[in-house]
This record gives sequence, structure tokens and C-alpha cells, in this order.
Amino acid sequence: MNSSLPEFGFSVKAKRTAPQPINYLISTALREEKLISLAAGLVDQDSLPAEETARLSGELFSDEAAGKEALQYGATEGLAELREAVLAHVCKLDGVSAAKLAVTPDNVVIASGSQQLLYIIADILLDPGDIVITEWPSYFVYTGALVSLGADIRAVEMDDGGIKLDSLEATLAELKRSGELKRVKIVYLCDYYQNPTGITLSAQRRKPLLDLIRSYSSEGRICLLEDAAYRELSCEEATPVSIKSHEADNAQVVLAQTFSKPFAPGFRTGYAILPDGLAEPVLNQKGNHDFGSSNLAQHVLLRAMSSGIYEEHVAFLRQRYRAKRDAMLEALHEHLGQFQPDQTRWTRPGGGLYVYLSLPEWMDTGKDSPLFAAALAEGVMYVPGEFCYGPDPRRTVPSNHMRLTFGTVDIPAIREGVARLARAIQRVGGRAAAGAGKASKAQSR
Amino acid sequence: MNSSLPEFGFSVKAKRTAPQPINYLISTALREEKLISLAAGLVDQDSLPAEETARLSGELFSDEAAGKEALQYGATEGLAELREAVLAHVCKLDGVSAAKLAVTPDNVVIASGSQQLLYIIADILLDPGDIVITEWPSYFVYTGALVSLGADIRAVEMDDGGIKLDSLEATLAELKRSGELKRVKIVYLCDYYQNPTGITLSAQRRKPLLDLIRSYSSEGRICLLEDAAYRELSCEEATPVSIKSHEADNAQVVLAQTFSKPFAPGFRTGYAILPDGLAEPVLNQKGNHDFGSSNLAQHVLLRAMSSGIYEEHVAFLRQRYRAKRDAMLEALHEHLGQFQPDQTRWTRPGGGLYVYLSLPEWMDTGKDSPLFAAALAEGVMYVPGEFCYGPDPRRTVPSNHMRLTFGTVDIPAIREGVARLARAIQRVGGRAAAGAGKASKAQSR
Repeated sequence: MNSSLPEFGFSVKAKRTAPQPINYLISTALREEKLISLAAGLVDQDSLPAEETARLSGELFSDEAAGKEALQYGATEGLAELREAVLAHVCKLDGVSAAKLAVTPDNVVIASGSQQLLYIIADILLDPGDIVITEWPSYFVYTGALVSLGADIRAVEMDDGGIKLDSLEATLAELKRSGELKRVKIVYLCDYYQNPTGITLSAQRRKPLLDLIRSYSSEGRICLLEDAAYRELSCEEATPVSIKSHEADNAQVVLAQTFSKPFAPGFRTGYAILPDGLAEPVLNQKGNHDFGSSNLAQHVLLRAMSSGIYEEHVAFLRQRYRAKRDAMLEALHEHLGQFQPDQTRWTRPGGGLYVYLSLPEWMDTGKDSPLFAAALAEGVMYVPGEFCYGPDPRRTVPSNHMRLTFGTVDIPAIREGVARLARAIQRVGGRAAAGAGKASKAQSR
Repeated sequence: MNSSLPEFGFSVKAKRTAPQPINYLISTALREEKLISLAAGLVDQDSLPAEETARLSGELFSDEAAGKEALQYGATEGLAELREAVLAHVCKLDGVSAAKLAVTPDNVVIASGSQQLLYIIADILLDPGDIVITEWPSYFVYTGALVSLGADIRAVEMDDGGIKLDSLEATLAELKRSGELKRVKIVYLCDYYQNPTGITLSAQRRKPLLDLIRSYSSEGRICLLEDAAYRELSCEEATPVSIKSHEADNAQVVLAQTFSKPFAPGFRTGYAILPDGLAEPVLNQKGNHDFGSSNLAQHVLLRAMSSGIYEEHVAFLRQRYRAKRDAMLEALHEHLGQFQPDQTRWTRPGGGLYVYLSLPEWMDTGKDSPLFAAALAEGVMYVPGEFCYGPDPRRTVPSNHMRLTFGTVDIPAIREGVARLARAIQRVGGRAAAGAGKASKAQSR
């Protein structure tokens, strides 16, 4: 009977929506039990605040009325006290007052991870064909969502200081010349320990970047979407203040942060500070999506913030991730320091979860490559860099990068994982180099 | 500086998205402290399972590894064991096996309330101008989302047995004649104790309804979206089985249920059983929205289900809501039984949270009406029926209904609220009747 029915007629948007490329990696990882995954974007499991959450939940439910309030529906915008608390928290990180930012708790929205806010911002601003400027590479879950919404992605090069301002300006100038500036709706930056590269936008680029975006907002207000998910996982003392903190009039920068990385993903709670004109349209959409995220999670997180437990936990995590980052960087140096040293390099992130490894250009890291297969055979998985680009049809996706995370596995596994990876790289790289040598000999005949 | 920037350019969708009409009611209710709200769609606060949740959370975190697992990221589709548990639960409610429904846990998706699934189903099936058939009246949050997506809503009359099959068939036949059948993507029904009317689709209409939808699925597969959010809050012993349970091939019925009404909204967790072809597109969208709902909430809810606490709590709630329903029906009888008895009537729901009160046609219940103001002056609020219709431009929205909920407030407040409401009705109704009398006298001159 089923087969006699015609198919469902899907929306244009559904047809544009692809499964996340990383689904393939997840299912592969699940099949291979002894695999060390340097791919999975999970957080460090051992350091998750189980004891703290148990205590905070216990305290919440020891007050019956408070417990019942937490179990009731919450507001679409989120718990008022939590919105106040996260605003105060962001102000503290940036060393500014809310008044200086021209922001009140009414500009704060709590959501199901910062991802939901990133998604809704795109949904309320983009019609198909509208332009989003991203870094190259960028966060692949979000670029997937942008594609689903029909966005035209223009990617801008990065260097070790983040997105290159001259390239960004050239892109904007070109869009102005071609009459497309009005379609530029969003500039999306993951500006702290970027996913996938681990690179942070340098302090000195932040204000000029905002000025640049503002100077090109002549035909329509461009939203600068600052995804600061990894911000609090800093390994160094000096972390630059947010781009948002350079904006005195709350006109165009959305600052999105989350409890997932610095506390626990299981709460699925993030937040954003929104310019005045965006809060209402965001809430109208969120009202349709789910009319509010878990009230219970928000009540527990409020207690985490007001008790100081949150801040203590972040300080603990920063130590922990620093040790893991150091282990990965040391292992890379030990095992790959001698491999094609003029063409092999990796980022040295100041925090976050990711290191980006670049191999000689002729080495393919793709999911169908000999190297990916060799890595799996050694018992290690990475995220092929090819997943992290675009799509910007004006650019060629490079095939010689990979994202490695030191977040998920423990230090011995980081060391062993990098050692396995290096063996795979040396084996495939050596063979390819030999092959390349032969080919070049053959050509020279 | 802010004022010198042009405005944000919003998407067509954002422009189509209105704030929820009920926001106005919520903000009014917050201003008026002594108000008895028969409007708010919250659940009974006193009976929320605070003690149970405290116990379940305590048990979860007493196992450190289990607690940490709950605090990690979960899968986009939800926790595997919870998907198994809710499927077994639905099968038990319907007295069928999963095999009989041709369903496995892979057809189950957990989300941020069933609302998120209703939204995503619409988003993957509807392009602007596509048709959704709804009841008249229908659940206003969802019709608002449908409007936001550009849907063309065709509403079909109800009687005490739910949507009228002859009217539904006439609507489908007309759409076929006009060549629009291919654009009919969804038939949306809230078929247990409907929001707003409290009416349940009768047992004998269920299979014929499915057959009817199937017979009109000749040009494209129509999704029958069965919103069973209130299903478990039944006051009577005999509750009809789901429409889904009449479908042997899992071809076109989505059954959406939730933990919000029968357990606690604070978890913000719902679920749906999806036809084979819909699970993947739903997950692709959900991956973009939030890549999974709160894992912590799901781990606690799994324990609620496997321990039997969930089932016990539902049994307790059914008693509780039955008493509240009875109190409201008795109060209506007492205070409005004599008011224009041939033109005043109300539904007698078999469960859920809502009673639908219909006044004489000449009595306006709208938010700008004298009656709404008089009710507020008496200290009671209701949801004007006008919010619950449409929009179907082919129909005139009636202005003489209101939704009353017995869910939120306690029994004394239900009695007092209805007494206040009756005073407002009698005052305004008496005045209007006098005025109408005068007008008709004036006309007869």
C-alpha cells in the first residue's frame, strides 16, 4: 500500500538541506570501537560538572516552590534572572558596563545552544540569494544551515590573526561595485579559537573590522554575527575583548555564547546579545520553533552562575584544556616535526578545542583519500579539512588540511592518536612522495 | 550613529511572522496581580513532579559516569533508549506492537517539545502557497507558524465528534477540481481534547479519516499530522486509539506527543513517530536548528519512564485534572446555566485543559470588546476565540467564543474565575441585549 502512494512533496528548503557531513564520521567512529577520535567535537567528558549539577539540582528541588517553577513552562526569551546573569557575565568578560554597550536584559535571548540563535538570525535575515560573508574555512554546521536557507556564501581568507581585513575590504568593495552590497546581510565570524582552525581574531583587528562593516552598511544594515562559543576556554591569560564590546550603540553586532563548552553541553543552553531591532523578530521565530528552551536547565544554570560554581568550573576547565592542548602540540612536534617541515604546519591555538594541521599540498586528507583510510587502519580519525570550506564557488577547496580536536579524548589518547596519525601520514606521504618522484622521472624522459 | 545606519533587511519569512497573539494576554496577566487567568496555557503547577524529578536526578548523578554522559552532547535524533521507551509507550497506549505499525525506534525523533517537530514538519513540506488543512478553530501557535511559512490554510468545520468528515471530503474534492490537490501537503489535527475546543475526534471517524486522506493522496503524499499533546490527560476511561494506530505501513501519519502535559513542561521534551521518508529530512533540519535537544532532560525522562514514575504520575494527573474539569463545568452550569440558554453553550471535554464557551452570536468576546474589558475589570482573563481561527480568507472568524482553561489555576480559583466571568457576561450581555432590543425597536419604526 505504501508503495502505491506517491512521494511526499518536499519544500525547496528541504531539498537544499544536506545531512551534516560529520554524520558519516560519527557513524564510522561508532563502528570502530578502538578508534581514537580526534574528530568528534564533543567536550572533555571526565571534567563534566556532574557533582556540581547534582548539588545545584538538589538545592533547586529542596525548595518545592522553586522546583515546581522550574518544571513549568518558561518564557520564549528565557528566564529573566538568567538573562540578567549572562549579561553581567559578558560585561565582566569584556570589562564594560551594560550601559556602555547600550544593552539591557531585553536584548538577551536564551536558546537551545547558541546554534539555535545563529540559525534564527540567518532565518530572519536571509532570502535565497542573499549574501553571507564567512571565514575560509568556517564552521561547517553553520555553513550547512546557510546553504539550506539558500544563502550565497562569500568566503574571506584568514591568517594567524583571523580574517584578513584587506581581503574582507576587497570583497565588500567588489560587492559594492557589482551592485550586490544590499544583499550582504551577515558577516559571520567564529572569532575565538575558531572551529576548525583554532585561530583567534587578533585584538588589534577587532575595532577596525567593526568600522569596516559599518562603513559598508550604507545600503542595508549588515549584521556582524560574532560566534564566541569557545571564548571562555582560553589557555592564555590575555584574551581579546569581544567585537561587540567595541560597539557603543548596539546597532549591528550579535554576540552569541553558550553554556555548552564552558560548562556542559547536556543543558543545551546558549544565549546571545542582540541589537535592538533583532530581538523581537528572533523571538517571533523562536515562538514558532519551540516557544522557549528548557526552563529546568535554565533554573539550574542560574544557580551555577549565582553560586560561583560556574566561574570555578571554567577556571578548572581552562587548566584542563591547556594541558590537553599542550599534549597535542607536543605530540605533533614529536611525531611530525621532521615530516616535510617546510610544507607541514599546524596552528597553536590560545584555547578552544581544535588544532588545524596542514600537510604538503599534494597530500589529500579527504574522506575518500588513502590517508583517511590509512588513519582509520591505524585506529585514528580526524575531520577532513574539505568539510570546512564553503561552499563558495569562486574558490577551490584545498584538500591538504585536517581538523584535530584535543577536547574529547584524554591526554594519553591524544598522544597515541597523534602518533597513529603521524604513522599514517608518513606511510601515505612517503609512498606518494615516492610516486611523485617516479612520475616526475617518467615525465623527464 | 545607530540612527544613521539603514535598517536591517528582513527575510520575507520574518516579515510574515507575527508575534503570538497570546503575548498580549501574557503581558496583561503579568500587570494584573489579582487576575485569575483562565487564559494561560500552563499546566497545573501544584502537581508538577518536583519530588520525583529530584529523586530521578539524584539517582542519575549518583552514578558519576551516567551523570557525565547526560551532561555531554546527545544525538540529533535523541537518546536511543528514550526513543525505544516512548515507542513502547505509544504502542501500549494504542494496544499494538511496533511491528504492526511498521515502525522502529529509527522512526522516533526527540525534540524541544512536540512544537519543534510540528514546526519542522511544516518547514520541510511547505513552500509558500502550499496548502494545509486544519480544523476550524485550531491551535493558534501552530497556525501562526504556518502563516510564517507562507502556507495557504483551508479550515474545516468541527462538531462534537471532531473534524467533520463530509466537510473534509468536500474541501478535498473542491481542491481536486480546482487542480490544487498537489499543493495539499499537510492535514493538521489536534485530535485529543483539542486546543482550543477540548473536543476529541471520535473513535469511529479515525479510520475513515485516514482512508479519506489516503484516497486523496493520488497527486502527492499528504502528511496527516496528528498532534496528540493532550492525549494522556484523559478524564474518562475510554480514550480512542490514535489515528496512527490505524495505519499499517507507516506511510503518512506523523504522531506527535510530549512530556510537557503529562509530566512537566520544564524538560521541554516532546517526540514524534515519523513515516520512513520523513525522519531523515526532519533530522537534517534539526541538525541545523540545534543538533539535538537537552540530553540531560532526556536522561532524567528515561529514568522516569523505566522506573514507572512517569506512569504513576500520569495516573495521578488524570485524577487531578478530572476534578478541575468537573469544577469548571459545574461552575459554568451554576453561573451561566440560565444565561441565554438557547444560545449559550460550552464543550464538555473528556480530558485535556480546555473548555470552549460559545455565547450568543451578537456577543463579542474579542480582545478589544466591552466583554474582555469587563472581564478584566472583574479580575478574570480568557483567550478570545478570534485568536483561534485561521486565517482562512474564505471564512468569517466568529467573535462569540472563548477558550477557558482549567489547567493552570486551582479549584477555588476556577470557581471564582467562572463566577467573575459570568458577572462580566451578564453585565455586558444584559446591556447589549437591551441595546440590541433598542436597535431592533429603532429598526422596526
